[in-house]
Amino acid sequence: MSTDYRFEGWCGLDNTAAKGNMKWQEFEPKPFGDEDVDIQISHCGICGSDIHTLRSEWGETPYPCVVGHEIVGKAVNVGKSVKKIKKGDRVGVGAQALSCLKPDCFACSDNKEPYCPDCVNTFGDFYKDKSKSYGGYANYNRTHSHFVFKIPESLSSAEAAPMLCGGVTLYSPLKREGCGPGKKVGIVGLGGLGHFGVLFAKALDADSVTVISRSNTKNANSLDLIICTVSSPKMPLGGCLSLLKFQGTFIQVGAPDDSLPGFSAFALIPKQCKIAGSLIGSPAEIEEMLELAVKKNVKAWIEPRPMKEANKAVVDMEDGKARYRYVLVNENF
Amino acid sequence: MSTDYRFEGWCGLDNTAAKGNMKWQEFEPKPFGDEDVDIQISHCGICGSDIHTLRSEWGETPYPCVVGHEIVGKAVNVGKSVKKIKKGDRVGVGAQALSCLKPDCFACSDNKEPYCPDCVNTFGDFYKDKSKSYGGYANYNRTHSHFVFKIPESLSSAEAAPMLCGGVTLYSPLKREGCGPGKKVGIVGLGGLGHFGVLFAKALDADSVTVISRSNTKNANSLDLIICTVSSPKMPLGGCLSLLKFQGTFIQVGAPDDSLPGFSAFALIPKQCKIAGSLIGSPAEIEEMLELAVKKNVKAWIEPRPMKEANKAVVDMEDGKARYRYVLVNENF
Repeated sequence: MSTDYRFEGWCGLDNTAAKGNMKWQEFEPKPFGDEDVDIQISHCGICGSDIHTLRSEWGETPYPCVVGHEIVGKAVNVGKSVKKIKKGDRVGVGAQALSCLKPDCFACSDNKEPYCPDCVNTFGDFYKDKSKSYGGYANYNRTHSHFVFKIPESLSSAEAAPMLCGGVTLYSPLKREGCGPGKKVGIVGLGGLGHFGVLFAKALDADSVTVISRSNTKNANSLDLIICTVSSPKMPLGGCLSLLKFQGTFIQVGAPDDSLPGFSAFALIPKQCKIAGSLIGSPAEIEEMLELAVKKNVKAWIEPRPMKEANKAVVDMEDGKARYRYVLVNENF
Repeated sequence: MSTDYRFEGWCGLDNTAAKGNMKWQEFEPKPFGDEDVDIQISHCGICGSDIHTLRSEWGETPYPCVVGHEIVGKAVNVGKSVKKIKKGDRVGVGAQALSCLKPDCFACSDNKEPYCPDCVNTFGDFYKDKSKSYGGYANYNRTHSHFVFKIPESLSSAEAAPMLCGGVTLYSPLKREGCGPGKKVGIVGLGGLGHFGVLFAKALDADSVTVISRSNTKNANSLDLIICTVSSPKMPLGGCLSLLKFQGTFIQVGAPDDSLPGFSAFALIPKQCKIAGSLIGSPAEIEEMLELAVKKNVKAWIEPRPMKEANKAVVDMEDGKARYRYVLVNENF
C-alpha cells in the first residue's frame, strides 16, 4: 500500500547513538498488511531499553534502528481485517509488535503473548518476511492491530505513553502475584519503573507500599511481595529477601544492566520464598491496566520533551535527570 | 520420670568434633513430658547438617552436642497423653523435634511445622525450659510425639532412617511443586539428597528425571522443575535456569555450604521462572512419604556403619565416600 506520508525517525546508526548521535532520516516499515494499523505518532516515552538497544548492550542491534516502545498517536490507516481500531482513534503500542497468535501456542492462547517464542519486539527486531521493526522516536509507526490499544478518553497521551511498557511491566507481576487488599508490597528502586510500582500497588488496593533502599532493609518478615526494578551486583538481594514473609515472592523486572548478586540459600530455604522474573505485559494486561488507571486516576510522573530534541533527552535520561519518565512529543500535537 | 536407662551418645565438644573427635558420654535429655516418647535407637542416618553443626558452621553450636536427625528405634516409654505411638512400636524422628503446635500458628495450623518461628531442631537447639535437644548418634532419644512417626512394617529401619530428613527434604518440594505425570524433573547433584530426588520423582510418576551436572546443562526449555541439592558459587545456576520451561521452578534444598552464584536477571525474566527454597518436611509430609515409599517400593541407597565407629563414618562421609547415605547401627539391633 502506498501512503501519502513517509516514515521518518531518529535512527541509531552505531553503538554511539545514545551519546546524542541519532540521525533523523527516513526508514522503510514492514509491508502494510490487512491486520495492520498505521499510527501518526504524537508521543513516545523514553525507556531504559531504548538506551540498552542503541548501545548494542543486549546483543548486536540491527542498525539503522529507531527505538521507542511507548507509542501514542492517531490511527491514520487501518487494515481491512482490523476490527478493534477505527481510523482516527487515539491508540498506543507497547514493547511488543507481534507474536505467532496461533491457537495452539501456550503463550498466545493464554494471554501471555510476551512469552511467545515468535515474539517480535517493537524495535530492532525482524518479522518473518525479514522486514525490520521500527519504534516510536518517529513520525509514524506501523504495527499489527493485536498489539495496538485504544487509549481511554480520560487519560492524556503523555501519561498513557509510558504505561505501555514501564507501567505494565510493574502492573503485570503485581496483578499476577495477587497484589490487593491484605497484601504488603515493597518496590526496589524509585525511578521510571519503580514509581509505577508504587502507583499500581496503591491502585490495586495493597495494604501498604514500601520503597526499599539499601538503608531500609529492616522490618524482617513483613512483606508479601517485592518488585525489584534495579539490577546490579550491589543490589541488596539478601536484605530484600529478609523482608519477605513466609512464601513471599521477589520479582525482578525491567532492564538488567548487570548480574544480580549471589545470595545465600539460607535466605530462601527457611521461608519458602521465591525469586522470579517478569517481562512487560500482554495485550489483555495492558487493556486492564489502562482501565484501572482511569478508574483509580493513576497519574504517571512524566516530563514532556520535544521529539526534535530526542538526542538531548536520551543523554539527560542517561544522566539520571528524568523524574521519572520522559515523553517525547511531536510538535504537530 | 526416672528411667532404668541412661542417655549416652557421641558428643561433639568443640568445632573439631567432625575430625573424629566426638566422645561417647552421658547427656541429660529434656524432662519427660506427657506428650513425649523415649526411643531406644537402632539406627541413625548421617546427614550433611550433622557435620555443619559439629563444626559450628551454621552459628555457634552449643557443645556438648549429639548430632543425628534421621533416627529409628523402638518406643520404650510413651507419655500418658500420647495417642499415636504405643510402647514397643518401631518409630522414627526427623530433623524437627518441636514447634509451637498452636492452632493460630500460620505454620502449625497448616502442616508447615518446619516453618514455625518456634521450631526446635532435633539436636543442638533449646526448648523453652532451656533444656537442650540431643540427636541420634546415641543409645536413646526423647522427642515430642507430634514429631515421632511409626515406621511402616515393610520398610527396613536402615532404609527408613535417611528418609526422615534427606528423603523428605526432596519429597516435600517435589510434591508441593506438582511433580507427577506430565512433568519433567531435573535433579542437581547425585548424592545423599539428590538420589532421593531421583527416587521420589520416579515414585511420584514424573515423565522423566534428569540428573544435571555441569556438563549437561543442555536441552534448553525442557524441564518443569529442578531441585538443586548443591550450593556453591560454582553451581551452574544460569545453565540450570536455561533448562527450565516457561514458568518452571528451580528449588534449592539441603545444606548450603556457601553462597549461590550471581545470575543474570535475563535468566528469569523472559520465562517467568522462579527460584525458591525448601526446608525439610512436615510430619504430614513425612507420613505421606513413608506411605509412598511402601507403595512404590522406594529403596534408599544406604551403607550401614556401626554406631561405635561413628567418628570414622563422619570422616569418611566428609571424604565423599558415602554411596549415598551412611546409617549408623547400634550393635544390639
